[in-house]
Amino acid sequence: MSANGEDRLLRWLRGRLVTPLIGDDAAILPSLGAVAVTVDSQIAGVHFPPDLAEADLARRLLAVNLSDLAAMGAIPAYAFLALSAAPGFDHKKFFLSFLAAGRRYGLTLAGGDLARHPGGTIATLTLIGTKDEDARWLQRRGAEPGHALWLGGTVGESAAGRLLIERGARLAGSRVDLPAFCQAFSSPLRAAARRAVRRHLRPQPQLALGRWLGAQPATSATIAAMDVSDGVARDLHRLCHESGVGAEIAAEALPFTASFTTLCAALGADPLELALAGGEDYVLIFTLPPELAPPPELGGRRIGAITRRGLFIVRDGARRELSNAGWDHLSDGKK
Amino acid sequence: MSANGEDRLLRWLRGRLVTPLIGDDAAILPSLGAVAVTVDSQIAGVHFPPDLAEADLARRLLAVNLSDLAAMGAIPAYAFLALSAAPGFDHKKFFLSFLAAGRRYGLTLAGGDLARHPGGTIATLTLIGTKDEDARWLQRRGAEPGHALWLGGTVGESAAGRLLIERGARLAGSRVDLPAFCQAFSSPLRAAARRAVRRHLRPQPQLALGRWLGAQPATSATIAAMDVSDGVARDLHRLCHESGVGAEIAAEALPFTASFTTLCAALGADPLELALAGGEDYVLIFTLPPELAPPPELGGRRIGAITRRGLFIVRDGARRELSNAGWDHLSDGKK
Repeated sequence: MSANGEDRLLRWLRGRLVTPLIGDDAAILPSLGAVAVTVDSQIAGVHFPPDLAEADLARRLLAVNLSDLAAMGAIPAYAFLALSAAPGFDHKKFFLSFLAAGRRYGLTLAGGDLARHPGGTIATLTLIGTKDEDARWLQRRGAEPGHALWLGGTVGESAAGRLLIERGARLAGSRVDLPAFCQAFSSPLRAAARRAVRRHLRPQPQLALGRWLGAQPATSATIAAMDVSDGVARDLHRLCHESGVGAEIAAEALPFTASFTTLCAALGADPLELALAGGEDYVLIFTLPPELAPPPELGGRRIGAITRRGLFIVRDGARRELSNAGWDHLSDGKK
Repeated sequence: MSANGEDRLLRWLRGRLVTPLIGDDAAILPSLGAVAVTVDSQIAGVHFPPDLAEADLARRLLAVNLSDLAAMGAIPAYAFLALSAAPGFDHKKFFLSFLAAGRRYGLTLAGGDLARHPGGTIATLTLIGTKDEDARWLQRRGAEPGHALWLGGTVGESAAGRLLIERGARLAGSRVDLPAFCQAFSSPLRAAARRAVRRHLRPQPQLALGRWLGAQPATSATIAAMDVSDGVARDLHRLCHESGVGAEIAAEALPFTASFTTLCAALGADPLELALAGGEDYVLIFTLPPELAPPPELGGRRIGAITRRGLFIVRDGARRELSNAGWDHLSDGKK
C-alpha cells in the first residue's frame, strides 16, 4: 500500500498516543458517555474559492463536518466555531446562514473564537454528536470478508464541480454562473454542470443513512463506515486498513449522476478518475452483511464486496489493483 | 461602555441564539453532564511570530487554551487539534512537544484535522474539560457588590515580552536571545527582559487556582471568574457586564514582576498601560466574598472590590473611570 503524507503522519502519531482514539471520522470519548467529537477546517484557496460568499462558506463548513458525524451514526448536538476572517469578511451574513443551517440539523452553536487573519479566511468547526441509547457508533473497523460494500450516493460529481470552479464557475445566491466555454454545452449538460458546482459547494451530509446504519442491532452484524472526503480509492484503503481486510469493487457499479460522463468528456476529465480520486463527495462508504440493505430512499448502492486482502477494481472484465490515489492534503506531489 | 468589534459582534450573535451559551471562557453543555468545551486559535503573525519553533507553538497553543479551562475550574480531559501548517512545518517536532505538554496536564489528544496552508500556520485547539462531582463551574456572572476582586498573578509582563519580540527577541530552545539594544541593560534588567519573553511565549495556565475556586462550596458564596487574555481593563469590563455590577481597582495593588517598571522604562512603555491593556497575561481574574482568600501558594492578589455600577481605577488618590481599552482582535483601530 503506497502511503501518503497525511496517513504516514497519522500512523506515526498513533504510535505515540496512550489511547488509540485517532482513526475514525469522529472520536468517541469513553469517559464522557455517548459523545462523538469531530473537527475540520475550511481554508480559503485550499478547500473553497477565496471569493465564496460568506453564507455559502457557512453552509459548506457545516455540511463537511456534519458528514463526519453521519459517518459515526451520530445525532448533531453542539457546534464550536473558530473563525479567522480575512479583511472585509461579513460576519453577520456568515452567522445568519450558519445559524439557519444549524437549526435544520438540530445543532446549537455553543462557543468559539473570532479573530482577524490578513492571510485569508480559515474556519474550523468542532461538532459534538450524541446517539440514541440503543444505537451503535459506526467505525472504520468492522468490515468482514464476504460482506457487501456500499456507497451512500454518487461520486465524482463534486470533483467535476471543483474543475468548473477552477475554470470560473461561481455560485451567486442560489444561481450558478457558468464560465464562457460552457455556452457551447447543450441545455441538459449546462444543467449537469450547475448541479456539479452546487454539489461541490453545498454537499448534503448523509445523517439519515448514518443513523439507519447505527440503529442496526449490533448483535446481528458488524458494520464499518466512513465518509468519502478524499476519494473512494484513498478512503476505501483507510477503511480496509482499519478493518484488516481487502475489497473488490466493480467499476460499472459506481453510481454517477445523470450526464456525469458527458460532463466529464466536455471537461476533458476521466469519470472513473474523478469518481475514485476526486474526493469531497461526502457520501458514506460502508459495509453490510449480504442479507441487509438500507431502505432505497436513503440512496445506497452496492459497489462491491469485502475480501480477505488486497484492493482491486474490476472493469470490462479485467481485475486490476486499486491504487491508493486520492487528494492528499499533506503531500506536495500531484494526485 | 465603549463597545468594540468583537464584543459588539458577540452581543449581536447572542441575541440570535436559542440557548444563551456563549459568554464564558468555555461552554458548559447542559445535556452532556459535567463537560466544559473551549476553542481557541493561534495564528502566525497575529498571535505568535511566524518563525516561532514548532515545539514552542505547541506549548503556547496548549497553555492559552488550558487557561480557558482554568477559568471554568475544569479538569483537562480531551484535546482536538486542527492544524493548518505552512510549508516546511515540522509536524513531528510540534507533536512531540504537544504530547509531552498534554501529558503533564492529563490531556488526551483524541482527534483533529491536518492540512497545508501556504498563507501561514494556524492551529485551532478544542479542549474538553470535566469537573469533580461536588465542584462548581466558574462563570463570568456571579460577582456581587461588596465582594473582593482578585488577580491570580502578575500582569503586563507578557505585553512587555511581546514588545521585545517585535523588536527582535527570540526563544532558542530554552534560551532567550535578546536584540542588540538590550546590551545596554544591566544584568538584572536583561534577566527581566528574558523572563518577559518567556512569559509571553510560555504562559502558565492557572489550573490549580481554578480548581480551588471551583471547589468552594456553592452554598456559601457566589464566585465570578475568567482569564485575562485581552487585558485587565477589557476583561474586567466583560466580567462586570455579565454580572451586572461595577468595580473599583487600586492601581498600586496591581501585581507586577520584579524589575517590571524598570523594564517598561527601558522599552519606553507605560507599566500601567501594559498591565491594563497589554493582554495575554493568562492569569485568572476573580471575585470572592471578603472573608475568603485563596491559599498563598496559588499566587492570588487582591486588587479591588466589586461595586454596584461603573468601573473605576484609583491612582495616587485620584479616582478615574477605567476605559474599556485592550487588545481587540476584530477592531482595526489602534489599542
